[in-house]
Amino acid sequence: MPGIASPATGSYTGAHSPRLSAARRLNKRAFRQRERAFLAEGPQAVAEAFHCGARVTDLFVTVPARSRRHDLVAAIAAAGIPVHIISGEVMDELAQTVTPQGLLAVCGFVDVPLAEIIARSQPRLVALLANVRDPGNAGTVLRTADAAGAHAVVFADASVDPYNGKCVRASAGSLFHLPVVAGARLEDVVVTLREAGLRIVAADGRAGRPLDDPEVQARLAGPTAWMFGNEAWGLPPELVALADEPVAVPIYGRAESLNLAAAAAVCLYASARVQRVQSDGEAGKSVAGQDAT
Amino acid sequence: MPGIASPATGSYTGAHSPRLSAARRLNKRAFRQRERAFLAEGPQAVAEAFHCGARVTDLFVTVPARSRRHDLVAAIAAAGIPVHIISGEVMDELAQTVTPQGLLAVCGFVDVPLAEIIARSQPRLVALLANVRDPGNAGTVLRTADAAGAHAVVFADASVDPYNGKCVRASAGSLFHLPVVAGARLEDVVVTLREAGLRIVAADGRAGRPLDDPEVQARLAGPTAWMFGNEAWGLPPELVALADEPVAVPIYGRAESLNLAAAAAVCLYASARVQRVQSDGEAGKSVAGQDAT
Repeated sequence: MPGIASPATGSYTGAHSPRLSAARRLNKRAFRQRERAFLAEGPQAVAEAFHCGARVTDLFVTVPARSRRHDLVAAIAAAGIPVHIISGEVMDELAQTVTPQGLLAVCGFVDVPLAEIIARSQPRLVALLANVRDPGNAGTVLRTADAAGAHAVVFADASVDPYNGKCVRASAGSLFHLPVVAGARLEDVVVTLREAGLRIVAADGRAGRPLDDPEVQARLAGPTAWMFGNEAWGLPPELVALADEPVAVPIYGRAESLNLAAAAAVCLYASARVQRVQSDGEAGKSVAGQDAT
Repeated sequence: MPGIASPATGSYTGAHSPRLSAARRLNKRAFRQRERAFLAEGPQAVAEAFHCGARVTDLFVTVPARSRRHDLVAAIAAAGIPVHIISGEVMDELAQTVTPQGLLAVCGFVDVPLAEIIARSQPRLVALLANVRDPGNAGTVLRTADAAGAHAVVFADASVDPYNGKCVRASAGSLFHLPVVAGARLEDVVVTLREAGLRIVAADGRAGRPLDDPEVQARLAGPTAWMFGNEAWGLPPELVALADEPVAVPIYGRAESLNLAAAAAVCLYASARVQRVQSDGEAGKSVAGQDAT
């Protein structure tokens, strides 16, 4: 019966409850850092957080959203996570989206140390954000890196907080899909990735060799970390100098440059394509080898 | 002398002048349609409009911006275009950006009929927006299409007005760089482009063959129009059916989809790459042929 809470699907929470106040504070970075927790807003982010194993500690839901997404809310409640029913007005105030969809989860941070990612896997494609400040851009690059099959995304130096609400939303769930490193120092990251066998390629529209250059393409077949700079001023020379090579997405028309998310999409998919062609080729050779023995 | 107007660099205009009122109305689409004019905001858009041959009819400028961009303002004044000096407050109210940079031009519409584009050139790469509603997305795709060397961008069916302020800004000048078709009917556009020898490819993450498929790549070497759908729901089956083939950007990771601008970047650059490889090959052959004779 919509509108009546049952123990299985949550209990009503007033506008002044301590859990709600604690959640509201997570709209500020300093509180997120202190609590190592953030807000995942909307049914997609909440479902991804829950199903991808993020530590969800509270769910806030409106009565209409509980009806619409009953299975999800019931599953979260069944996992022993407190479900708090709040009014649409309280949700509007808690959520940062213009049209909140009535579901919001408090999640523990999901980022992992870079060393751990390298210890447990051999990353072949990594996106490295160097001072990317706009949360929408950073979240879109995270989503694109996920789509391109990247193995990690690193938020380095003065890059935006990956747990910023706008970044979480722009990532469309990808924050929960692939390992994210937060608050890293770019120079350290470059050293660590290089020691792990990755080439560091700086996406640099001004200085780089063109992405379609056959030699560049051949090198992209190996393990690669793409370094992307700030959306307004790109990568300054001292950061480009940290990389093994600068590479430019070629501009064939009259545009001065590409925006960050578009450039990242072209670069990451270029790597994904040549890495897969190579590994398909190796797989083919290996099968042929088996046939020959 | 900054702060003192000279005939060469404009005359002061009060907050209630008719030219200013006329410009202010261009923030509304109905008035833009009636006047066939729109606002280009900021030094980059103003400079591109002026240098790329758009019909600029008025320039509004603050005193500090006139000092900063003196050459541009003087060139516009020298071309006989009225330069109106307005206060920072009036500029803030006229401009739609949060941090207007003190320059704003009234420009005549720059779109051209599709038939004219086809008559004067043989377009080999066209981006076709089918019901793309978000002006920031549409402007970003326009910028990316320009960078990828596309020959035209078509705003079809219920797509956003290309002269929307947010679209103009997101295009970063590209609105003035390549031919734009506005207010077209998608079905008509598809027929016209097909008759002009272009294959119509629908970017469709659900139904399409993967972009990296060798047969897809081979077909992309020919003249191609990419059809991109709405940012939230993509292309519905009845629009995909208008195309010769649906093609999907492959998702290698766990993301459900790419955002529109990222998908468009990958598709348009895939076409640009294979078209250029082919034409380089032909150029090579032609040179070899000359050597042989």
